[in-house]
Amino acid sequence: MKKIITIGRQFGSGGRELGRRLAEELGFEYYDKEIVAEIAKRTSLSESYVRSVVECKPHQLYPITIGKSIAYVGDYQFTQMQSVYQAQDSIMKDLADKSDCVIVGRCADYILREQSPYRIFVYADLASRLQRCLARAEEGEDITEKEMKQRINEIDKGRSKYYDFYTGQKWGASQNYDLLVNTSDKEIKGLVKGLAAMLKEIL
Amino acid sequence: MKKIITIGRQFGSGGRELGRRLAEELGFEYYDKEIVAEIAKRTSLSESYVRSVVECKPHQLYPITIGKSIAYVGDYQFTQMQSVYQAQDSIMKDLADKSDCVIVGRCADYILREQSPYRIFVYADLASRLQRCLARAEEGEDITEKEMKQRINEIDKGRSKYYDFYTGQKWGASQNYDLLVNTSDKEIKGLVKGLAAMLKEIL
Repeated sequence: MKKIITIGRQFGSGGRELGRRLAEELGFEYYDKEIVAEIAKRTSLSESYVRSVVECKPHQLYPITIGKSIAYVGDYQFTQMQSVYQAQDSIMKDLADKSDCVIVGRCADYILREQSPYRIFVYADLASRLQRCLARAEEGEDITEKEMKQRINEIDKGRSKYYDFYTGQKWGASQNYDLLVNTSDKEIKGLVKGLAAMLKEIL
Repeated sequence: MKKIITIGRQFGSGGRELGRRLAEELGFEYYDKEIVAEIAKRTSLSESYVRSVVECKPHQLYPITIGKSIAYVGDYQFTQMQSVYQAQDSIMKDLADKSDCVIVGRCADYILREQSPYRIFVYADLASRLQRCLARAEEGEDITEKEMKQRINEIDKGRSKYYDFYTGQKWGASQNYDLLVNTSDKEIKGLVKGLAAMLKEIL
């Protein structure tokens, strides 16, 4: 069986960077946006639509079924969403069968539970996440601290609802992970060296 | 500044063994029962009394003050407890100043917060904890699975109340730790090799 590491992460915790660097350090494949592209290919839907489905809160995507004609549109949308989820499931399983890998987000810890992934959750305090997000935004975006706080809260609320809905588990709750890593005031690069050393021993 | 690792742990998670082995692996001092002995020495109280104070739920130890004579006894007991806590605080700080160390339990993560300890919390699912406790009990104790479950729950309830009361924080909540390690179905020895490799990199 291949070695699989899944990374759940709070927005701004550096979890995506951690996942990417960890894959590099361990010589594993790294899957993140590639999954969206592959879903789009398999379902013949646009990448932007696929992204809106796999990154949104499920309750926002529910069809509103008042009146028959709207119900029809709703059903169609619902069927499309289902096909995105099914494609996502099967793509992840294919990838996990192919080679040792790190997969970020997308309930991979749950979807791949039969392949016994090593499940990491990355989190940080709000101050650190805010600092990380603002530093990243500086490159091109004009956003206030207050707006960024709101964005962080909204995105995490979405991730939490998405995860809870599709897994029946609680996002970020320790019992659903093997290791929870606090990145507050920590440099991701250094942390990854440590994590890689650990994972080389235990996986 | 010395390197300090504090270990909070659920009962039966193997956290104490993990702490001891980690100290061995890293060549750090290991403090656990030594602290009780040292408190007893400094306060001239018996080790068993000190243990009852530092391992019990705080609300159970509160003086009951109905009527003056009982209030006096209560005050005396309260003063004694306070001296135990003060001794514990100052002993921990002394130990943490002396050499790199691993300290298990006793709110060390909070008491030593100014020394920036690396704060680990060790946990596991109930089935794993039960299995560990029963395997340990087999050596001498006659206890049923149901009784052991009750004991695990009671001890953890006590640890949680003790921690919450003295730190004003939530025991086992990820924001209070740097790393949370799930030991369910895992061998502590192997895990420790990994953790030690990680901590050598990041501390």
